[in-house]
Amino acid sequence: MKKIKVDLGKNSYPLIITHKDLFPAAQILKKQLKEDRLFIITNPKLKKSYQKTLEKAFAGFVSLHWITVPDGEKHKTLLTLEKLAVTLSKKGANRQSALLAFGGGVVGDITGFLAASYMRGIDFYQMPTSLLAQVDSSVGGKTAVDLPTGKNLLGAFYQPKAVFIDTNFLQTLPKQEFACGMAEVIKYGMIADKKFFDFLKRHAKEIHKQSPKALETIIAQSCKIKAHVVSQDEKEQGLRAILNFGHTYGHALEQVTGFNRFKHGEAVALGMLKAVEISIHKNLCSQKTHSELKALLTAYKLPVTWPKINAQKLNSAMAKDKKFQSQNIRFILSENIGKVKIVPIALKELKQ
Amino acid sequence: MKKIKVDLGKNSYPLIITHKDLFPAAQILKKQLKEDRLFIITNPKLKKSYQKTLEKAFAGFVSLHWITVPDGEKHKTLLTLEKLAVTLSKKGANRQSALLAFGGGVVGDITGFLAASYMRGIDFYQMPTSLLAQVDSSVGGKTAVDLPTGKNLLGAFYQPKAVFIDTNFLQTLPKQEFACGMAEVIKYGMIADKKFFDFLKRHAKEIHKQSPKALETIIAQSCKIKAHVVSQDEKEQGLRAILNFGHTYGHALEQVTGFNRFKHGEAVALGMLKAVEISIHKNLCSQKTHSELKALLTAYKLPVTWPKINAQKLNSAMAKDKKFQSQNIRFILSENIGKVKIVPIALKELKQ
Repeated sequence: MKKIKVDLGKNSYPLIITHKDLFPAAQILKKQLKEDRLFIITNPKLKKSYQKTLEKAFAGFVSLHWITVPDGEKHKTLLTLEKLAVTLSKKGANRQSALLAFGGGVVGDITGFLAASYMRGIDFYQMPTSLLAQVDSSVGGKTAVDLPTGKNLLGAFYQPKAVFIDTNFLQTLPKQEFACGMAEVIKYGMIADKKFFDFLKRHAKEIHKQSPKALETIIAQSCKIKAHVVSQDEKEQGLRAILNFGHTYGHALEQVTGFNRFKHGEAVALGMLKAVEISIHKNLCSQKTHSELKALLTAYKLPVTWPKINAQKLNSAMAKDKKFQSQNIRFILSENIGKVKIVPIALKELKQ
Repeated sequence: MKKIKVDLGKNSYPLIITHKDLFPAAQILKKQLKEDRLFIITNPKLKKSYQKTLEKAFAGFVSLHWITVPDGEKHKTLLTLEKLAVTLSKKGANRQSALLAFGGGVVGDITGFLAASYMRGIDFYQMPTSLLAQVDSSVGGKTAVDLPTGKNLLGAFYQPKAVFIDTNFLQTLPKQEFACGMAEVIKYGMIADKKFFDFLKRHAKEIHKQSPKALETIIAQSCKIKAHVVSQDEKEQGLRAILNFGHTYGHALEQVTGFNRFKHGEAVALGMLKAVEISIHKNLCSQKTHSELKALLTAYKLPVTWPKINAQKLNSAMAKDKKFQSQNIRFILSENIGKVKIVPIALKELKQ
């Protein structure tokens, strides 16, 4: 077991990383919950796979009430949020009640926003089941639903009371989803930790085989880096932007291709390569950074070749980004592996 | 002009009370806004009445973009919230944008929740136009929408950047709405300020005539009391509950009568009388408190006679209240005019 603290003053919380061990989670819940029940929000598939496991692990600690939401980003809407809230109120949930988000990013994002807004805020916990959620979305308190006009447009910065990460849940994760999580893991190396980047190079085989020890190491190190950044800038007013390395072009690529051609992690992989290209163009790093990144992405079965995309569409998609301020886009550029810099670039300049 | 500070650390903000003077508001907006436009959320009737007034007052300070929502509590829904958010994103609102809630409690509640959640939080301002909103809902940061299963079930504690209260907007307010606001004003006297209660007794005529000076005095004093309570307990974990004096029975009465027989303020008036009756029963105050309160409510044309209501229905409505903890209801009881006490009462006891 590894324990990492996300340090946010009175909103601080622990990340607990285990392998096939839900006992630490049960203990924390038993200690913290204000009532002896817990509402688990998950999707039908995960409920089917793990209901028995969780019931068994939590027996004697807390009673579980299961509420399911359909799987997939298209259900990350206000309509789903309303249905969940109505279900909670019918089940008598009150300000003493707490939620557990058990699933990937969609379940985590919507459950977090539900917890932030139900009766103006109740406690919630994260138990992420995908690698992407374990190293990224479950940590940091960003919660949201999508609008017809854009992703994550309604939400809240709202921190969980604890995050329970068990690498065992990754066993049933499709290979492509695992690769997507690795894109974010590689990102942490790129933005903050050259040694970690090299570790990922050396241990590609064990990580692919999902050796529990290797998984624990890369998840813990990823969470440490994210926790450190979030601790310094909870509400994304400055430094936190570096977590968006590869995401500016990545989001735009997802949007222009209708959110069905590339998975999020694949788009981020391509976005990181593009960010490094711009960095080279601006003399911030060398061609070697690009080839090293490309080699590592390839080792983890992530795409490295940009498709043919209309540049104008891509630029106008970027201009709509939440982080876009006035006429500049705040780009996260690479100054070599392990180091990034926030550079405002005018939309005009990008067009060249 | 009067200025009152709501003291909440880095979330502190001023309440500006004026009469036919929007210049202080224009100045503050000019100084604080991160972009030179402001999105005004209001209802069609208020837009028609005051668009010219506001455009004129703010000309040269900030450009106004008007967005309307239909009037009435039945539109305080997630559906309306989504429509507003989509409109904002289509108009290009970003994290630098700000909203102004121009209207009564419904507009204020929904605009506040919209500001709390749009892109995970943008700035907003309150310009309340009803007496109820000026002395109560616009101050303190409670925002919400209703669910089919209950009022204000989804929302956020989210503070405005400033509240602009101009008593001139009350001129077009229906008499019954004015009386409803007075129920909350009287409540402030009951919970915290005997002198203020006596002032309301002595100055009933001027207040009825809406003398600007008298209005400024009662609004300022009400806001001071509310600001003081909220400063000590932003998220309703203790003291803030005293603001619910008269509201436990009041909410239950509204609910049991289908939200159409009594206006909120009328229900609060009857709820305060009931709370004093229970206080007498518990030897906390005397019959004189009851007759004084009754006389003042009558002077402000508020109801003082309870309708015939099924007691069981009333009790079960109370049990669903957000502030309800386990088997006790935290009642706010009177210990004489100007003083209250939080007393947990078991549901069983109430039935008697």
